[in-house]
Amino acid sequence: VAVAPPFVYLDQVKSSLTDRVEISAQNSWVGKGGAFTGEISVEQLKDIGCKWVILGHSERRHVIGEDDHFIGKKAAYALNENLKVIACIGELLEEREAGKTFDVCFKQMKAFADNVPGWDDIVIAYEPVWAIGTGKVASPQQAQEVHVAIRDWLKNNISAEVASKTRIIYGGILFRLA
Amino acid sequence: VAVAPPFVYLDQVKSSLTDRVEISAQNSWVGKGGAFTGEISVEQLKDIGCKWVILGHSERRHVIGEDDHFIGKKAAYALNENLKVIACIGELLEEREAGKTFDVCFKQMKAFADNVPGWDDIVIAYEPVWAIGTGKVASPQQAQEVHVAIRDWLKNNISAEVASKTRIIYGGILFRLA
Repeated sequence: VAVAPPFVYLDQVKSSLTDRVEISAQNSWVGKGGAFTGEISVEQLKDIGCKWVILGHSERRHVIGEDDHFIGKKAAYALNENLKVIACIGELLEEREAGKTFDVCFKQMKAFADNVPGWDDIVIAYEPVWAIGTGKVASPQQAQEVHVAIRDWLKNNISAEVASKTRIIYGGILFRLA
Repeated sequence: VAVAPPFVYLDQVKSSLTDRVEISAQNSWVGKGGAFTGEISVEQLKDIGCKWVILGHSERRHVIGEDDHFIGKKAAYALNENLKVIACIGELLEEREAGKTFDVCFKQMKAFADNVPGWDDIVIAYEPVWAIGTGKVASPQQAQEVHVAIRDWLKNNISAEVASKTRIIYGGILFRLA
């Protein structure tokens, strides 16, 4: 289990919990730490005892404007520095309605695959954007259908071993702490 | 005096200092706090005892891609919520060499002026981008020339009172803590 509070509360939350609950950041900088005012680096997160970072959250993609490639680069940097990654993917309502759910999710998966050094420390979080904060919720069947497709994609594009080992979670409560 | 450490260290730095040194954030979200994963809201900053926020730092403008209007809106939100603002302005090397230093600084000033509710809680920080982390430094004369121009701009565009009262600082060491 991991919790992902805002940056300013990470230290406080960490010291309030037992080691059984790990701490995740909600974002990290794309490369080595340096002079990037207002950003938080992977090095800083490790320094305060953070084990995970959420990357590609729908709000980073659609509100802040981070694109697939940028998110893939962030994942690569975090993993290379031994920070584990919760890699978020998911389609917008109009993408689902246009029948593009799998296309969008696979494109986002490919951007991770094109960049990351390995899959041991990645958890995939499927979070359909239309089911977050809208009052709409995905049914278990809708979530399961995409989870199966993601696992198939991993089998066909990475390996059967990665497909069988990788955790795929549904992006609900965990990602709504902000 | 204020110090502006990265978000993850704000709480720790605050508790390590006397009240004579105030705490500043390096950035804040543009509007009311909510579900904006990875961003830090004005409300969160106030909650942890932060009194200031730096907005419009050259790295936010030129590396992250925040534009004048977005930065002006951020300043407005912070001020309306009683967080004081260190408003950064400054020209790129090519802008200085093209003789556009004042044009650029005045345009950035105007974006603040168009948005903020008042000037009591704003400190202007002039930070020529070409003199940050490049090995080049602005001479006292170069800095003073722009400071005078900014004060004149305030007089001509806001009021003589604001022009005389507003602190204008040079963005050197204070803004290189990241």
